[in-house]
Amino acid sequence: MSSKVIDLRSDTVTRPTAAMYAAMASAEVGDDVYGEDPTVNRLEQRAAEVFGREAAIFVPTGTMGNQIAIRLHTQHGQEVICESRSHVLDWEMAMLSAFSGCMPRTVAGDRGVLSWESIRKAISPKIYYRAATGLISLENTHNMAGGTVTPLPVLREIWQGAREAGLPVHLDGARVFNAATALGVSVAELTSGFDTVMFCLSKGLGAPVGSILVGSRAAIDRARIFRKALGGGMRQAGILAAAGLIALEEMPSRLGEDHANARLLAEATAQCPAAEIDLTAVQTNIVIFSLKNNGDAAGFVAKLKAKGILSSAIGPHHVRLVTHYDASREDCDACAAALTELLR
Amino acid sequence: MSSKVIDLRSDTVTRPTAAMYAAMASAEVGDDVYGEDPTVNRLEQRAAEVFGREAAIFVPTGTMGNQIAIRLHTQHGQEVICESRSHVLDWEMAMLSAFSGCMPRTVAGDRGVLSWESIRKAISPKIYYRAATGLISLENTHNMAGGTVTPLPVLREIWQGAREAGLPVHLDGARVFNAATALGVSVAELTSGFDTVMFCLSKGLGAPVGSILVGSRAAIDRARIFRKALGGGMRQAGILAAAGLIALEEMPSRLGEDHANARLLAEATAQCPAAEIDLTAVQTNIVIFSLKNNGDAAGFVAKLKAKGILSSAIGPHHVRLVTHYDASREDCDACAAALTELLR
Amino acid sequence: MSSKVIDLRSDTVTRPTAAMYAAMASAEVGDDVYGEDPTVNRLEQRAAEVFGREAAIFVPTGTMGNQIAIRLHTQHGQEVICESRSHVLDWEMAMLSAFSGCMPRTVAGDRGVLSWESIRKAISPKIYYRAATGLISLENTHNMAGGTVTPLPVLREIWQGAREAGLPVHLDGARVFNAATALGVSVAELTSGFDTVMFCLSKGLGAPVGSILVGSRAAIDRARIFRKALGGGMRQAGILAAAGLIALEEMPSRLGEDHANARLLAEATAQCPAAEIDLTAVQTNIVIFSLKNNGDAAGFVAKLKAKGILSSAIGPHHVRLVTHYDASREDCDACAAALTELLR
Amino acid sequence: MSSKVIDLRSDTVTRPTAAMYAAMASAEVGDDVYGEDPTVNRLEQRAAEVFGREAAIFVPTGTMGNQIAIRLHTQHGQEVICESRSHVLDWEMAMLSAFSGCMPRTVAGDRGVLSWESIRKAISPKIYYRAATGLISLENTHNMAGGTVTPLPVLREIWQGAREAGLPVHLDGARVFNAATALGVSVAELTSGFDTVMFCLSKGLGAPVGSILVGSRAAIDRARIFRKALGGGMRQAGILAAAGLIALEEMPSRLGEDHANARLLAEATAQCPAAEIDLTAVQTNIVIFSLKNNGDAAGFVAKLKAKGILSSAIGPHHVRLVTHYDASREDCDACAAALTELLR
Repeated sequence: MSSKVIDLRSDTVTRPTAAMYAAMASAEVGDDVYGEDPTVNRLEQRAAEVFGREAAIFVPTGTMGNQIAIRLHTQHGQEVICESRSHVLDWEMAMLSAFSGCMPRTVAGDRGVLSWESIRKAISPKIYYRAATGLISLENTHNMAGGTVTPLPVLREIWQGAREAGLPVHLDGARVFNAATALGVSVAELTSGFDTVMFCLSKGLGAPVGSILVGSRAAIDRARIFRKALGGGMRQAGILAAAGLIALEEMPSRLGEDHANARLLAEATAQCPAAEIDLTAVQTNIVIFSLKNNGDAAGFVAKLKAKGILSSAIGPHHVRLVTHYDASREDCDACAAALTELLR
Repeated sequence: MSSKVIDLRSDTVTRPTAAMYAAMASAEVGDDVYGEDPTVNRLEQRAAEVFGREAAIFVPTGTMGNQIAIRLHTQHGQEVICESRSHVLDWEMAMLSAFSGCMPRTVAGDRGVLSWESIRKAISPKIYYRAATGLISLENTHNMAGGTVTPLPVLREIWQGAREAGLPVHLDGARVFNAATALGVSVAELTSGFDTVMFCLSKGLGAPVGSILVGSRAAIDRARIFRKALGGGMRQAGILAAAGLIALEEMPSRLGEDHANARLLAEATAQCPAAEIDLTAVQTNIVIFSLKNNGDAAGFVAKLKAKGILSSAIGPHHVRLVTHYDASREDCDACAAALTELLR
Repeated sequence: MSSKVIDLRSDTVTRPTAAMYAAMASAEVGDDVYGEDPTVNRLEQRAAEVFGREAAIFVPTGTMGNQIAIRLHTQHGQEVICESRSHVLDWEMAMLSAFSGCMPRTVAGDRGVLSWESIRKAISPKIYYRAATGLISLENTHNMAGGTVTPLPVLREIWQGAREAGLPVHLDGARVFNAATALGVSVAELTSGFDTVMFCLSKGLGAPVGSILVGSRAAIDRARIFRKALGGGMRQAGILAAAGLIALEEMPSRLGEDHANARLLAEATAQCPAAEIDLTAVQTNIVIFSLKNNGDAAGFVAKLKAKGILSSAIGPHHVRLVTHYDASREDCDACAAALTELLR
Repeated sequence: MSSKVIDLRSDTVTRPTAAMYAAMASAEVGDDVYGEDPTVNRLEQRAAEVFGREAAIFVPTGTMGNQIAIRLHTQHGQEVICESRSHVLDWEMAMLSAFSGCMPRTVAGDRGVLSWESIRKAISPKIYYRAATGLISLENTHNMAGGTVTPLPVLREIWQGAREAGLPVHLDGARVFNAATALGVSVAELTSGFDTVMFCLSKGLGAPVGSILVGSRAAIDRARIFRKALGGGMRQAGILAAAGLIALEEMPSRLGEDHANARLLAEATAQCPAAEIDLTAVQTNIVIFSLKNNGDAAGFVAKLKAKGILSSAIGPHHVRLVTHYDASREDCDACAAALTELLR
């Protein structure tokens, strides 16, 4: 592209860094279905260490990681408690039902954040003619709520309640490094009470392809079965794992920049008369605002595109911007200026 | 039982009438899997006539009828729009997901009544990476909302909207004869815009076992496949159909009595200082009230039981009473007296 | 019908006996979903006693009983070992796959009879990228093999092998009373090593509707969940159970008559130049023969029908006759005469 | 590893070529979920051209490609006709049942090769209480039969029969380039009558990861839905597609070398007194032989490994060798020598 486009539709659009390209170009590989790809093995081992777990498994997408986890913890005909705008509910093709045979039991969170009290009420009564609750699934940060963070004390209450209720808890941690960065804690501490955690090497961490599911040895051994079933048993996956290792080791420490850029965009928007934004909800790398007077989001996205900036309409009046590695401070300054102009 | 128990837990508890017993005792039967049971055939034909449809199929339960309909209209991996306390969601063992592979997309109704406007917003955007909407499923009367009725004009708007959106609409009409009685219209008129309608011969109509699904010839031909699959292909089902024919022909005209009895109970409750009741929601044969000051519903049900009256706790503070053929005016008078005493 | 038709298509066509009609006409009933139907409870208790088991559950059809059992014992994505012409494979609408998510692993039996040796070879190797074996399902008598009987010593070897392999074994015993009659043992002895047994009250035992699944208390408790899910949670099912009790208590002792009638038909056929029959395979109430010179089975069935006798074409050249309570010795004599005439 | 290991377990073990590494290191990428990865787009376009089809879709594995195709063509509760040792049956985790809800209807082929006559007999009779046939799935070359090839005239008869029966036909063409090489025809000609074809860029073509499904535009549009559902919607997949393009363009022309090497191994084995081999079944790059006198395959594989050669035991007495890009003529000479020595 001759004139640069600033793409803030999602952090999924990042391109591999030079270091990642170099790593891929010299990756040592093997047949991972036989467990013989040394680079995949190293990535899985490092992921387990970073999260303080026994084991990890590399999967091509976050959707596959989440759906393997849901399958792992549930039986067909059970219910999965999840937030009413969560990714596993809205953006994973109903696989919770189509593959795991489960029904979501939705709970509306406060800016996407669930409390134990609200979860507790959604647990099925234990009578044989009601579908039983099989799993609680959380999302941190919460994408559609605008990258909001569930804090540790709230999680601890949920972990304890779930344990007492005998229910497993899974984390869709596609952006858990963003949550950890915002809270200033390690991902290991932030996820210690979950039975399984899925996180993405792509998105904020910038790898081209790949996510990881971590958990107990027994859980990950079973996960290998479901990964094979879903068609995720890639052969020389070390190519991708090589980039993933760099994503895991080097990229988390820079997420604060994305958060600062998102804050910059949010505050610029807050100054604009034509937009409405909840600044307290801008906690990580996602900015969502609405257009006043029922302004048309799709039209606004088109105007922004004419200025070389890509964004997403996520409802008739709502616009979303996501900052990431490929959007520099200068890019975000330019975006802020464009917003200021268009939202007068 | 020596001293009579008044059972108001549900209208599912009715016992067959003498006429039904007599009909079953002389029912002409055949092998219905081969389509040769004359009594089943007569019942299916009459049901189709009453609802103004091409065809009907006899099934052992309302759950089977609803789940066959959902399977008929959908593909695995689609979404089904339904009310957030609907029977297909809460009381059918997650089969919408476990058998049809669909995910419910819930919409909270006003006393269980959905509008086209609220349904429209729940339809999936047409992008390949979102699960598509496959079906809209309504419930009339709405059980958990207290037997509330969706009026014809509201239905007409939904039928038209759905037709324009290219979406099928199913009715869980377990108690559609109650709805028709309350509105003073025929069931044929009240259901004319639905693609399929399930109604129960048990419950208010008093048959011991059985429900019916009506629709087009093509739909019911496919329904036979799924009934066989679900294990509903009974052999000499004419025994049950004989009672069902009496339920269909003779019982709808008396449902007004049940409604009057429910009204009597509701108004008695409304006088009680310890209870809270929404009288406008008592429209048919179901009465739901709550106990003030967070009164314990399970405890209250126990106290009522001690007086020979069975009721249901449907939440920590909510109690449900359902009137039916086996609960006479005298029974309901007795119940009203007991409520008045216990809810002082 | 003015002139009597002799229906030998299947033993599913039997009509209830006078005693059954009388029992249904006075059956004490209740709401079985709440476990309150006294007649159903009595039938389930008697069935458990007869089979020497902890518990039993009444289901509307044999298909539902088998599919509940398969669901009970397996996980989605596993394999079920079964005979290559078994009922669960060919006549249950692929529900083994559609509801339980399992794949059949078929083994061809000798006249439908499997050996442990042949089963053992079909068990999956224990490597994570192979679907695991979840269940072994047998059928005794074997319908499509012609009502053949698996003898006790063969079963004992299978039970022991399965136990050592850690695999559950289910019996589709739709006609297990026929097998027990042929072998002169009790059904309890003949089924003692199975984890669950399904048997039919209809078919040879003559009840209009209904089958039973027996097993451990824990298995049957879970079976109640799946029966509700499949839409088999009937309300006042005691009507059917009343006939079922008579079927269970009074009908097994007369099955020898059906077997003698089948033998009569088989031997008559063996004398016919135009037919070929394996007399050793005629062990119970089913007779299968083929037409020589590629004779057309459908055409033959039509000719027999013209003589007032109904039979089934079960292949291009194969015809099946099934004897039962409604086919008297005189009926079978008449049929034998017709066969002799038509198969000259 | 200091001394080189010759790995003939499978052609899945190949490592990327230098050209592939170079291509990956400079691949232009984008977000493929949004259809914006230029390298993926180019690969999909080229694959469609090579196979003479409207469209193609890149998937991470052959299993995912096959299972998407099965899901595309079928309804839950149908049957899929496939060969009794086919990959979709034995090596894809029962997903035919667990994801598509279908039951396999197996037909034993002659060295893995099915005829229309044998397929025709396996099609379900059209009666509502039998599961309907939904799809015919073939495999060419046939892996477990030893890389055998189904010739064009046989395929043409199957295509015509299926068309007349109204049934779709899918090809598991994981190694279809090997089949085309063996027959001396183009893959376009060899697959023209299939509704969809899956082929692998890995295996013989040497790419590290990836397979392609080709078909009509409408089929591939729906395939995108199921790829997303299965978790195959990778983001910057262009990295892998870059290697895939080289695999597709440059590698097919060299498959004859692998076939010659396999022939060399097979003929050496045929000379060995301790082995039995069907030379007519060695048609491409797979060699299967058995050990006489019930020789132990696992033990033999261990002995070969001690000599630096990896092979597979595919049964108690059967050994498999697969030639590929990373196994040179010298490697195969060495292997032949080892076989000759060990199989004296």
